[in-house]
Amino acid sequence: MPEDIRPFEEIRLLLANMPPPCEESVAAVRARDAQLTKPPGALGRLEESSNGSPPGRAMRSPQSKCQWSRFSPANHGVVAKGVSAFPPSVTKQMLDNFTAGGAAINQICKSFGVGLKVFELALEHPTQDFTEGPAMEEPAAAATLAYGMEAINGGVDLLAPGEMGIGNTTSAAAIYAALYGGPAARWTGRGTGVDDVGLARKNGVIDAALALHGPHLSDPLEILRRLGGREIAGMMGAILAARLNHVPVLLDGYVACAAAALLHAMDANAIAHCMAAHVSAEGAHREVLERLGKKPLLDLGMRLGEGSGAALAIGVVKAALACHRDMATFESAGVSGKD
Amino acid sequence: MPEDIRPFEEIRLLLANMPPPCEESVAAVRARDAQLTKPPGALGRLEESSNGSPPGRAMRSPQSKCQWSRFSPANHGVVAKGVSAFPPSVTKQMLDNFTAGGAAINQICKSFGVGLKVFELALEHPTQDFTEGPAMEEPAAAATLAYGMEAINGGVDLLAPGEMGIGNTTSAAAIYAALYGGPAARWTGRGTGVDDVGLARKNGVIDAALALHGPHLSDPLEILRRLGGREIAGMMGAILAARLNHVPVLLDGYVACAAAALLHAMDANAIAHCMAAHVSAEGAHREVLERLGKKPLLDLGMRLGEGSGAALAIGVVKAALACHRDMATFESAGVSGKD
Repeated sequence: MPEDIRPFEEIRLLLANMPPPCEESVAAVRARDAQLTKPPGALGRLEESSNGSPPGRAMRSPQSKCQWSRFSPANHGVVAKGVSAFPPSVTKQMLDNFTAGGAAINQICKSFGVGLKVFELALEHPTQDFTEGPAMEEPAAAATLAYGMEAINGGVDLLAPGEMGIGNTTSAAAIYAALYGGPAARWTGRGTGVDDVGLARKNGVIDAALALHGPHLSDPLEILRRLGGREIAGMMGAILAARLNHVPVLLDGYVACAAAALLHAMDANAIAHCMAAHVSAEGAHREVLERLGKKPLLDLGMRLGEGSGAALAIGVVKAALACHRDMATFESAGVSGKD
Repeated sequence: MPEDIRPFEEIRLLLANMPPPCEESVAAVRARDAQLTKPPGALGRLEESSNGSPPGRAMRSPQSKCQWSRFSPANHGVVAKGVSAFPPSVTKQMLDNFTAGGAAINQICKSFGVGLKVFELALEHPTQDFTEGPAMEEPAAAATLAYGMEAINGGVDLLAPGEMGIGNTTSAAAIYAALYGGPAARWTGRGTGVDDVGLARKNGVIDAALALHGPHLSDPLEILRRLGGREIAGMMGAILAARLNHVPVLLDGYVACAAAALLHAMDANAIAHCMAAHVSAEGAHREVLERLGKKPLLDLGMRLGEGSGAALAIGVVKAALACHRDMATFESAGVSGKD
């Protein structure tokens, strides 16, 4: 394909044209907050959830029917190198479990009345083993990113992207090492539960990939193509589409944040609409969140993926929004103010 | 009243006859947990929420209709000393706000489909100013404690006691100082928002009370009577009744934990059925939770009272229980186990 129509250029153009913050919405939210029957600031981070300054963060009239957790299962060629405690067939089996309503994410979404949509990403075509070459060709990576942008279609007013894919903590760790510096061991964890031998193998696999691709890892989109997975590309697209359309995003854990980190490396303002939902028990997620400038709402020791941490945080955000929308004001309730 | 029929003796008798843990329930929960379609431990503290060992903690078939947030507004004589940023009339005004559905706790409970019940505690009769004498007589304190025990009536399967009362962070701080050692400044915070002058006054009031009652503060029930409030007595009764009936409890913040701390000082096993819901932004709550041996589920910088932190945590617990109850097993979903 000729240089002048490379698919990644379209993504770069979108990032170059992000809308500014919606200051009027934020001001309106803050003005109402000051009148509600509570001491100023007493709802802590619940106020921030309805009241933050970034674009799209101010959500004044949310409808629970429009809140969504959406996620993308994908398969990874690198699992052939023995980096996971589970076989790759589990990705498809879990996809069936999601469809049948039997996974954790189904129950969490049901608990909070949240819609769930699964984007299957060519499970029969795993990415290439990135220790032997780039995981994806540029057209495939760009097409998956564009497909991910469809996640906000249909009136979504809060997006919680998640993932499932045996091998994908290996891909995420490789991305962090490429973005922030190695060695692999600084970024890896036990994923679904590899033992010490498996963890050493995982580190070796990532260090080998970094050595192979090292000269080509200065561009975040090239990092995605060489070390990423389809679910990470899909989530990048979902987060970017939300940014362009003023839809706030709850960031899930270790793998979902790899998508956010790639966007952040392209332009820090690209994830200004994101809140961190939960800090994972997996490896270096806490450091990743610090680098992204995000403080997690929840810290419950989870490391499941599926968007489960983000979906749990939807419960907190829904309660925050209900307070903001439906609490009485000092005037309407006839409550005295401060002495 | 003669020594041999003192009302507090009935409370002591209840604490001396607490039931043992329900080991079968806990074992059954753990056995099911091991079969669910997730890596072991991947739901972190959500597993602990459905799976802990203390009595009453194992909740196998919870019905959302039976989850309750209940709380007790009460008035404090010590507010005459200027310890709060709001006038005491606000307690009654907020009671009306709760009844009309306009407070934060109403919205949070509605978000999660949780029942709410308010126990009004003789607002027209504030406790005595504890800088001048005991806050309550023993019969009144014991009767309020007994009234609080009614909180679990009607099939409650999860209890989240809360409170509202202008002046009650002063009472709670005095209780912590009496239990764990002074001076007041170690335990106080800004409550609803006192300024520096107000905070200094609050510290002085508590230190004066500790000097007055000091010789009589070795017995937790005597601390309740001398420094407590009706809402703290009511919550003690609610927590104790839950302990006796295997009902798990979510502990709210700074003031609610004063009730738990008094029970804990009588017998550490009396709060074995309690989980800490949220660590308050108020003063020394973090240290209180450490002394109680409880790690909070949430840390959202809230300092509102009303049981709002505990009600938010009900959302997390409901999601945890939904996962435990409704997730597929590896066998039922045909998902492969570890390699």
